[in-house]
Amino acid sequence: MKIEIINTGSELLLGSTLNTHGAWLGQRLIEVGLRVQRLITVPDGEPIRDAIKDSIAVSDVVIVTGGLGPTSDDITREATAEALGVELIEDEHAVRCLEAFFKKINRPMTPSNLKQAQHPCGADVLPNDRGTAPGVYVPPRLGTTGEKKGCAIFLLPGPPHEMHAMYDAEVAPRLRAMIDIPADFGVTGIKFSGVGESRFQDELDAKLEAIGGDAKLEVGYCARPGELDLRLIGAESLREEAAQLAIDTYPESYISRNGDSLEKTVVDLLAKMKLKLALVESCTGGRIASRVTDVSGSSKVFTHGYVTYSNEAKSQLLGVKYETLAKYGAVSQEVAVEMAQGGLVHSKADIAISVTGIAGPTGGTEEKPVGTVWIGISRIQDGEMHTSAVQKYQPQGREVFKQVVSQAAFMLILNSLRAKRKNS
Amino acid sequence: MKIEIINTGSELLLGSTLNTHGAWLGQRLIEVGLRVQRLITVPDGEPIRDAIKDSIAVSDVVIVTGGLGPTSDDITREATAEALGVELIEDEHAVRCLEAFFKKINRPMTPSNLKQAQHPCGADVLPNDRGTAPGVYVPPRLGTTGEKKGCAIFLLPGPPHEMHAMYDAEVAPRLRAMIDIPADFGVTGIKFSGVGESRFQDELDAKLEAIGGDAKLEVGYCARPGELDLRLIGAESLREEAAQLAIDTYPESYISRNGDSLEKTVVDLLAKMKLKLALVESCTGGRIASRVTDVSGSSKVFTHGYVTYSNEAKSQLLGVKYETLAKYGAVSQEVAVEMAQGGLVHSKADIAISVTGIAGPTGGTEEKPVGTVWIGISRIQDGEMHTSAVQKYQPQGREVFKQVVSQAAFMLILNSLRAKRKNS
Repeated sequence: MKIEIINTGSELLLGSTLNTHGAWLGQRLIEVGLRVQRLITVPDGEPIRDAIKDSIAVSDVVIVTGGLGPTSDDITREATAEALGVELIEDEHAVRCLEAFFKKINRPMTPSNLKQAQHPCGADVLPNDRGTAPGVYVPPRLGTTGEKKGCAIFLLPGPPHEMHAMYDAEVAPRLRAMIDIPADFGVTGIKFSGVGESRFQDELDAKLEAIGGDAKLEVGYCARPGELDLRLIGAESLREEAAQLAIDTYPESYISRNGDSLEKTVVDLLAKMKLKLALVESCTGGRIASRVTDVSGSSKVFTHGYVTYSNEAKSQLLGVKYETLAKYGAVSQEVAVEMAQGGLVHSKADIAISVTGIAGPTGGTEEKPVGTVWIGISRIQDGEMHTSAVQKYQPQGREVFKQVVSQAAFMLILNSLRAKRKNS
Repeated sequence: MKIEIINTGSELLLGSTLNTHGAWLGQRLIEVGLRVQRLITVPDGEPIRDAIKDSIAVSDVVIVTGGLGPTSDDITREATAEALGVELIEDEHAVRCLEAFFKKINRPMTPSNLKQAQHPCGADVLPNDRGTAPGVYVPPRLGTTGEKKGCAIFLLPGPPHEMHAMYDAEVAPRLRAMIDIPADFGVTGIKFSGVGESRFQDELDAKLEAIGGDAKLEVGYCARPGELDLRLIGAESLREEAAQLAIDTYPESYISRNGDSLEKTVVDLLAKMKLKLALVESCTGGRIASRVTDVSGSSKVFTHGYVTYSNEAKSQLLGVKYETLAKYGAVSQEVAVEMAQGGLVHSKADIAISVTGIAGPTGGTEEKPVGTVWIGISRIQDGEMHTSAVQKYQPQGREVFKQVVSQAAFMLILNSLRAKRKNS
């Protein structure tokens, strides 16, 4: 089945916005065994017409993102109707949905928004509860041009959170119904942190590739700051064997194999163990707290977060001693330990994490260069407080630094929790 | 001049690698007045052939990235020679460069690397001192097919640091020589928050489009959660007039016109006014603090962040009264005010922001549905503490909620700071 993607939006070609749609859709399509043949990115306006015509002529499925907005250069609907040789009609239900949406967000609906309720005659409207632009599904019978087999067309909104929700709810089920893949064919994604792609490749790749012999198991990697995703594509039994091998090889780096983020894995385990977490952040500046609270239900396990970006705040809020700060400096094992202990005591949590380091680009010294960081952990176990701290060095720029350090902090919590579960 | 980009590489379509080449090249090309007409992303192997043939047929300039490696699916050179109807020949100078490169990195050169020294007969080799793949420049006379004016073709290596260096050194000068752009032609980007794309379109679009009369000013928008970027392309005087009109129309929504993020705009203004900021977050859970500390130099203005995710934490760290919590609930004007006041007093900052709301998906009630949020602001002005709070309603899911609410909080700070500067 030949599938093409068209991403519309001048901002994608002007350098102001990275196109993340291609990668996101590519990954989702792999899960139903489809591989994108071509991805076309075009600016708003007329070029959308040519791109849609081109792609319909050579594809079985075309997914178009963007150009469904209310402005004059949003012409994806018109271009599609034109390519199919049908009229654009206004959908009454879509008009009512638009009215309801604007009522919900308490803003007036403008006349130009009405354009968003239009769709090519004969196509289905795909609901969008996250924004104003409904999607459109053109079934293959309508997308038939000349001799070629019909082409199914999906028009999806450009904003990522709208597009993602609509793909999962409306596109994926229709694609699965169109194609015939073995029932046990699928993708297993396993997340790791603290082990690099090249080490994985050197130590494990050959063993993974050998699994299943002639029966093909496809192995892929995706490296992000502080995280490595292993992707296994094939029959279920092969994926299972490979997953177990990878997890057993790097148990202390293993995060999850159900798609859960590191923060969700940590929050869920804390909730299961009925433990409360406190966070004490200096150089990560609230990033860890923000990631914890990205998880729905985190209020059950997280109550206190301290962002102590100055020595005064560390002392005032956590009781870190001025002598310790003066003697060892704010970025030191001793201060990390006192921060974690202070956070644990003041919040009455069961486990506290502290982070103190130099994110850069300024503030480094010869002895403590930019990228130096101490992560402390303090826990109540068997009625006693146990505290320790580890040093990391992550000189990769402020943004990557914060992400990688928060990953390391979460892994420290996760391994501490898992060790306790194993021992008890 | 019609210009197209072809990015090759299966990883770009599998979700494992984000395509950054399109945005990077798009930005560079705008600087010489060129606008990408179409960007095509294709997997390695055969699809490269069709893409190159397609693009040469309709463009004046084609830039191809990737597919210049030593493996069998790296066929960009072959595909280009085939499209031009010329032979591939081995370049002796390129062979010597390859030998020198491998000597430099102290690795053996393999026979497959020799393939990288080939180029279509009549084309120029572009040196690459950062990797093994030399680039190729096909001058327009060679890229002539049929009646059409000749097409210039650039083949560039896929690794970003190699591609960037080669574009700047070899491609940009050749493009500048080909075209003739006015000295004051350029792009102005202006960021707004709190005004939607459709309102902008209805109220301002026609006036912006009318600026300059026949002299064309191009107006574009890019909407993100809680942010709208206005993009003006044209002569400097037109851009200036349009920018001023937009800013004067929505002064309370205006963020910046130098590319600075909202958080950087706020941090820089605080630093300039020598003011300290404290942050008190409940439902945003540290997101605002994390964004502030994404800005290098934020330690000058930000010292204390409180993530008070429970009633106990609000009371313990900020002195919010239990009676207030019991009477009005945690999500209320009264609690937002006490949180902001508590944050200001305890941190000794000059300005404090508080946020309390219901991010969802759970926790909503009929009276206070998911998405309800109060943002408080407390300031010391002329020796007195002034505190107020505003209510917002953002029922768009947890992730967007946190982003949009943090945008609103930053705007509250920004407008308060700007009002003070104006008054004083």
